[in-house]
Amino acid sequence: MKPVLNTQSAPDALKAQNQITSKLVLRRVAIDTYRENVAYLHRDCAIYRAEGFQALSKVEVRANGQHILATLNVVDDPAIVGCNELGLSEDAFLQLAVDDGHVVSVSQAEPPASIGALYRKIAGERLGRKDFLDIVRDIAELHYSKIELTAFVVATNRDELDREEVYFLTEAMVASGRKLDWHEPLVVDKHCIGGIPGNRTSMLVVPIVAAHGLLCPKTSSRAITSPAGTADTMEVLANVELPFEQLEEIVRDHRACLAWGGTANLSPADDILISVERPLAIDSPGQMVPTILSKKIAAGSTHLVLDIPIGPTAKVRSMPEAQRLRRLFEYVASRIHLSLDVVITDGRQPIGRGIGPMLEARDVMRVLENDPEAPNDLRQKALRLAGRLIECHPDVRGGDGFAIARDILDSGRALAKMNAIIAAQGAKAFDYHNPPLGLLTFEVCATEAGVVIGIDNLQVARIARLAGAPKVAGAGVDLFRKLGEAVATGDVLYRVHASFQSDLGFARQACAKSTGFTVGETNAVPHVFVEF
Amino acid sequence: MKPVLNTQSAPDALKAQNQITSKLVLRRVAIDTYRENVAYLHRDCAIYRAEGFQALSKVEVRANGQHILATLNVVDDPAIVGCNELGLSEDAFLQLAVDDGHVVSVSQAEPPASIGALYRKIAGERLGRKDFLDIVRDIAELHYSKIELTAFVVATNRDELDREEVYFLTEAMVASGRKLDWHEPLVVDKHCIGGIPGNRTSMLVVPIVAAHGLLCPKTSSRAITSPAGTADTMEVLANVELPFEQLEEIVRDHRACLAWGGTANLSPADDILISVERPLAIDSPGQMVPTILSKKIAAGSTHLVLDIPIGPTAKVRSMPEAQRLRRLFEYVASRIHLSLDVVITDGRQPIGRGIGPMLEARDVMRVLENDPEAPNDLRQKALRLAGRLIECHPDVRGGDGFAIARDILDSGRALAKMNAIIAAQGAKAFDYHNPPLGLLTFEVCATEAGVVIGIDNLQVARIARLAGAPKVAGAGVDLFRKLGEAVATGDVLYRVHASFQSDLGFARQACAKSTGFTVGETNAVPHVFVEF
Repeated sequence: MKPVLNTQSAPDALKAQNQITSKLVLRRVAIDTYRENVAYLHRDCAIYRAEGFQALSKVEVRANGQHILATLNVVDDPAIVGCNELGLSEDAFLQLAVDDGHVVSVSQAEPPASIGALYRKIAGERLGRKDFLDIVRDIAELHYSKIELTAFVVATNRDELDREEVYFLTEAMVASGRKLDWHEPLVVDKHCIGGIPGNRTSMLVVPIVAAHGLLCPKTSSRAITSPAGTADTMEVLANVELPFEQLEEIVRDHRACLAWGGTANLSPADDILISVERPLAIDSPGQMVPTILSKKIAAGSTHLVLDIPIGPTAKVRSMPEAQRLRRLFEYVASRIHLSLDVVITDGRQPIGRGIGPMLEARDVMRVLENDPEAPNDLRQKALRLAGRLIECHPDVRGGDGFAIARDILDSGRALAKMNAIIAAQGAKAFDYHNPPLGLLTFEVCATEAGVVIGIDNLQVARIARLAGAPKVAGAGVDLFRKLGEAVATGDVLYRVHASFQSDLGFARQACAKSTGFTVGETNAVPHVFVEF
Repeated sequence: MKPVLNTQSAPDALKAQNQITSKLVLRRVAIDTYRENVAYLHRDCAIYRAEGFQALSKVEVRANGQHILATLNVVDDPAIVGCNELGLSEDAFLQLAVDDGHVVSVSQAEPPASIGALYRKIAGERLGRKDFLDIVRDIAELHYSKIELTAFVVATNRDELDREEVYFLTEAMVASGRKLDWHEPLVVDKHCIGGIPGNRTSMLVVPIVAAHGLLCPKTSSRAITSPAGTADTMEVLANVELPFEQLEEIVRDHRACLAWGGTANLSPADDILISVERPLAIDSPGQMVPTILSKKIAAGSTHLVLDIPIGPTAKVRSMPEAQRLRRLFEYVASRIHLSLDVVITDGRQPIGRGIGPMLEARDVMRVLENDPEAPNDLRQKALRLAGRLIECHPDVRGGDGFAIARDILDSGRALAKMNAIIAAQGAKAFDYHNPPLGLLTFEVCATEAGVVIGIDNLQVARIARLAGAPKVAGAGVDLFRKLGEAVATGDVLYRVHASFQSDLGFARQACAKSTGFTVGETNAVPHVFVEF
């Protein structure tokens, strides 16, 4: 359905008058359309009536030498936009970067340059390197509508991309943003593919490896679908939204940071794709690999330890699936010259005790302080991951990393490093002995005696989110029992914390449907065979 | 990533307080979001802050026993919605059907019941009859967001559906809306898969077959991506938006109507899916077949003649492709008990001379009036299609239909029937000898002598749309030369009509890029081998 190219040139008369503009007055419309540019035009606006625009068609808005594409919504209320005005949603307004009241011109948009490549992918064709570069650039420049973004995400889902296409997509995502260079040969990072509540190992691994002298400039995301991301949890202890220049200084002084990655403009196309992947619960290998690896390359990492948890309610549920995913990560990492060490870990249940920013910050501090109440699973996992990273250094013998990491933690050097990072980023008052958790609580108790044979990662995460996490830092779920532990009837399985009655109510409703815990016979505890 | 079902029941204490409601005041927000429910909540609204809503998450709005799902946009301007208000876009407001100022409650929405089936389709699984029924019902009830709709459309694109799934989808679309019953054994219809400008045969076929006595209650769509649909063109001559009761009466009196189908609520899910298929230019067999056949079954048709044009710029570009499409149509038609006669026709160029509602109405009236200037290709094609429909009647011998149709047309009986239908629907003043076409015009002339060897359907349609069609009824393209005709340098190839300077300018720009016409040697005219 592409127009056939026409060899006959158009009559000269037609070539004149090529700059048609339809002038309107710009108006900022304070609606957050979440990374989609939306333009608002009044239904009685002369231009709308005349130009055959349709709701949801794409328009091009020009002002002051700038231009953006936007999706059209039609308005019938002059209080929102008047007949001689063009409204822009927050994102679109900021992108156009001219003042309210400025004269703008609007016209039917040409489709984004990469739309042909998108159509070919929808039709099932294999795309080349340039196609991915074009598509990802158009996405990063907000030329795609939500509909086009979704089409790209679904058309590149599951087995639609071969491994070379996954590499091309990763490379294109790196190219769409900024790339940091730390001018050192060894820049380490760790990452988990996600899905396990409470799995806050980065906040332990980073100070441990930095205390050992490795460069570990860690930028993390906020929670997307989970009750807390590393950035949300670190924010309980310190400021995480720092200008990039300050981050650089902190890393120079302390060999590490623990900051939010959003300000660095690393792989911006990825942040946009997430806006449609999230509501569709899409997290297929063809998208997970470019998402994770492009951020690492853009952040200047040279060595990465990657955590793939498996378990019945983890993202990956079987060893063959984990191995397939590992091989895809390794193939792309080798093409982009990233040294990658994949570890497949136990993802049968949450890690640590707390789920929610403040509860997880408490657990992290307990481990760093060698507090007797520190959750041992979190400590052990962090030590093993830190050990693997320490072994990236050519002077460390394979197998020695764990003991080195443990010495650093036990000696208090990890705590000292963490405190230095917290002070450098700007410390917040937080007493981990008495965290100001949400004061509205209820407890979920066992209704029969036995052994905990299942903790549903997804349901526990859902309950913590409904209770208010991560937006309400003190909200979440505090686990009193873990897999394999004996319970008597009436024992508390977990306590839910919230700060608002309505949140408490939503969490209570979810618990009434399913507590997330299963109690049964000892021999019914599921086993997994993983490194740790 | 589905929660594992938990066998342990929740403690009784949790089962209380299950009806949490967060009350706000309803406000109608006059924004047309084109078949997507959007809810607007102020960022400082206590409920938004407390409940961990995110932009683009789905909320459930309840009032007065009614409830709807909507996508959340966050607003920072109290002039649009205040802190204690919940705004709803036009569609959503109408759907909830309570008054402005009514108290509403809002909560995080459970995902639509069919979301599991959607996820399975995205993951590449084959779906069953019930899955399609569930999905299509959720779509028809506006439970899907634009993102979910797009995911469904892309995941069911091209070869993702087998032919039985195409049948299930067709059946589900019929079930989602109203189904008409005309209480007669023979209810005929004709349909074209589209893509050929000017191809307005329905407005000839319907009066011819109705004059022969066949029941032909024709409901048509407005243009989706073309410069004119049958409803847009008929609207030049008569009222087409009629209450269903009046349509029934007209059909009883005249055996036919030519009306817009939008008021009849036939296959409503299809109208919603079109809102995302259009911007993606998706028109694959797996979607085209359910779209077309569900509307016909819902409209009560028993016999359908289906026109599949092929040509280098038609929707279908080769005979094998046309045959595959024919077989899929025939398979599904037989499963839903529709008698189907597929004709594969010449789609190398536009049919008739005019492109745009008024220009096409002029061509239709010229044929009905047996005007010497009537375009012969339109006349011949309409007669052949009408002939095939007339042969649906068991008393007509195969091969006799064309002559019967020609007699009806030549004798003026088709014109009389058309005038009766126009009068019944409510005639509009239209003098086909002097149609009030757009007064702003320019002509595109040949720059070399030769023979017309190519007319690009897509480019000519695009030019007509930019000139204002179908919204501006008098706008469009009037063709002066067709395929195989000789031209001298300077001869007019076509004239463009518009009513607004800006439209004229846009059309001129498009012509400057490509006129859509190719002139060359006689032997370069492409041939197609089709029935007609």
